[in-house]
Amino acid sequence: MIKIAVDLTGADRPQEELVSGAVRAASENPELFLYLCGSRSALEGAIDASAPMERIELVDCTQVITNNDDPTEAFKTKKDSALVRGMSLCKSDPEIGGFVSCGPTGAIFVSALMLLGRVVPVSPMLLVELERTDGTPVCIVDCGANVDCRAEKLVDFARMGTAYMKAVGVSEPRVGLLSNGAEDKKGSAVVKQANELLHKSGLRFIGNTEANRVLEGEADVIACEGFAGNILLKSIEGSAKAALSELRRLTEGRLSPESEAGKAVAELYAKYDFNTRGGAFLLGTKLPIVKGHGAATSETVYNIVCAAYRLAANGLTEKIKAEFGKQPRQ
Amino acid sequence: MIKIAVDLTGADRPQEELVSGAVRAASENPELFLYLCGSRSALEGAIDASAPMERIELVDCTQVITNNDDPTEAFKTKKDSALVRGMSLCKSDPEIGGFVSCGPTGAIFVSALMLLGRVVPVSPMLLVELERTDGTPVCIVDCGANVDCRAEKLVDFARMGTAYMKAVGVSEPRVGLLSNGAEDKKGSAVVKQANELLHKSGLRFIGNTEANRVLEGEADVIACEGFAGNILLKSIEGSAKAALSELRRLTEGRLSPESEAGKAVAELYAKYDFNTRGGAFLLGTKLPIVKGHGAATSETVYNIVCAAYRLAANGLTEKIKAEFGKQPRQ
Repeated sequence: MIKIAVDLTGADRPQEELVSGAVRAASENPELFLYLCGSRSALEGAIDASAPMERIELVDCTQVITNNDDPTEAFKTKKDSALVRGMSLCKSDPEIGGFVSCGPTGAIFVSALMLLGRVVPVSPMLLVELERTDGTPVCIVDCGANVDCRAEKLVDFARMGTAYMKAVGVSEPRVGLLSNGAEDKKGSAVVKQANELLHKSGLRFIGNTEANRVLEGEADVIACEGFAGNILLKSIEGSAKAALSELRRLTEGRLSPESEAGKAVAELYAKYDFNTRGGAFLLGTKLPIVKGHGAATSETVYNIVCAAYRLAANGLTEKIKAEFGKQPRQ
Repeated sequence: MIKIAVDLTGADRPQEELVSGAVRAASENPELFLYLCGSRSALEGAIDASAPMERIELVDCTQVITNNDDPTEAFKTKKDSALVRGMSLCKSDPEIGGFVSCGPTGAIFVSALMLLGRVVPVSPMLLVELERTDGTPVCIVDCGANVDCRAEKLVDFARMGTAYMKAVGVSEPRVGLLSNGAEDKKGSAVVKQANELLHKSGLRFIGNTEANRVLEGEADVIACEGFAGNILLKSIEGSAKAALSELRRLTEGRLSPESEAGKAVAELYAKYDFNTRGGAFLLGTKLPIVKGHGAATSETVYNIVCAAYRLAANGLTEKIKAEFGKQPRQ
């Protein structure tokens, strides 16, 4: 049995709606046990009679942390929020393998660092997994948790991404360094230095990757500083959706949703709608944390609970320790 | 009459093929005079009898600068290349209003700085114009000429982009600062400082712009440091094309090229194919320079010659001087 703690509060949509996604994840995965943190009365009324309640425990919380709260202040003063209660459970119950929340990123980071601590001596980071056009996964790390990084941090991101990809089943992940040119000498001063360090890192470094090669290239891990990673991630989403929206406009509504092309457009639009599709992974604390977007739907919650379960089942934390343990002394 | 000098060498495709695009631009614009620089014999054989030869002068050059040449070395030793000869003409003939080349960016930069010099005391920069999904233009500057910039340079980029947008007909261009969040306090240290400077710059600054808002947002000018700008530009191209390619694959070739949807996909794919579609603008030297991609086609050359003509006709250089003349002392 793998236990996952789920904070159902703090998102745009109400917990009564989001909970069905978590319940669905439990129904489909017989080895998954959920702590659902929120308002007990709200959740009880919303959970379907067919839910596997023998593997679900409701954790009644009276407070909610929102985007308007200062993260550190919220952590200190809202001890009975679903976010802090859920994270506290992660600390006290060694059977819990991961935490899921659609609440504010800052408060999640603060709570995770205060209650769980780091798994290896590196800064926590945000990783997002995308699907390449050939259907295989690629991850981008860091996606915005760390800006103005030194070159050594980019190597940490590459190493964490390598551990993550191993946990999702890629045996020898190839690392690409995001840069403004494919040649080793291209990039900012930090990127050029990171390129040198990556060549000596023991990782499977395949050189610089340009932004137009992320979805159709060779790298399984795109290592980048958080500012550039955030630009990359948001422009991938924005551009793919923009092109598909334009296609709908160009055909002036005559692309029937029932037609093969119409269905394919809808499928791709959903694929590139990162807000509702999936989550970002906060890696570096003692348990993997999956953070859904504030605009998350019940479907998102289903996806991110499953993602947390899979990472816990595949031993991400052990893989991170192993990967950083191999790190050559520099 | 506006004269434009065109270097037809140094691209992947032969000058005999590319020249037809330049000739077409001259045929369609009766006030455009072209200096076509390349091999006279090659060009003479390729130019159609219907070309307006009274407004075309061939400049016979014996050397070619390629991507394998060191830019500074090439400038010094290949004085009879189409690139250096064309740029020299720009220096000596005051009627020339712009320069066009698909040759190596580095050599164009060096030649432009050595022969033309700066129009205002700022670093030359690369600007790319894109079409928003509503059909209006947006420019990204800098797209890769300057990395590791100080905040003041980002303000220069915003100012140059403003002058450019005025030259293409946007009367009060809105400037957005590329960042990893919409709030003023979001960004790298340099971006946060640039945000403060832009608020005091006298430009129409509308705040930070996230990468997913470039094609569907409010800013006419996206100001960014060259590393981030390059990531943004390449990921817009890569992601839009990837989504459209996936659509073709999802429909397994059953999206007939003759169908309305099939035609729309082809149109959008061409729109987002920046390699062949258009060019980048090297701004900051005394004449506007339009740089086509190495993979340029005859169609690209047509587009970039027309773009250079339009900028010269609309007085870009004067607009740049005016915009930088207004700069408040800081």
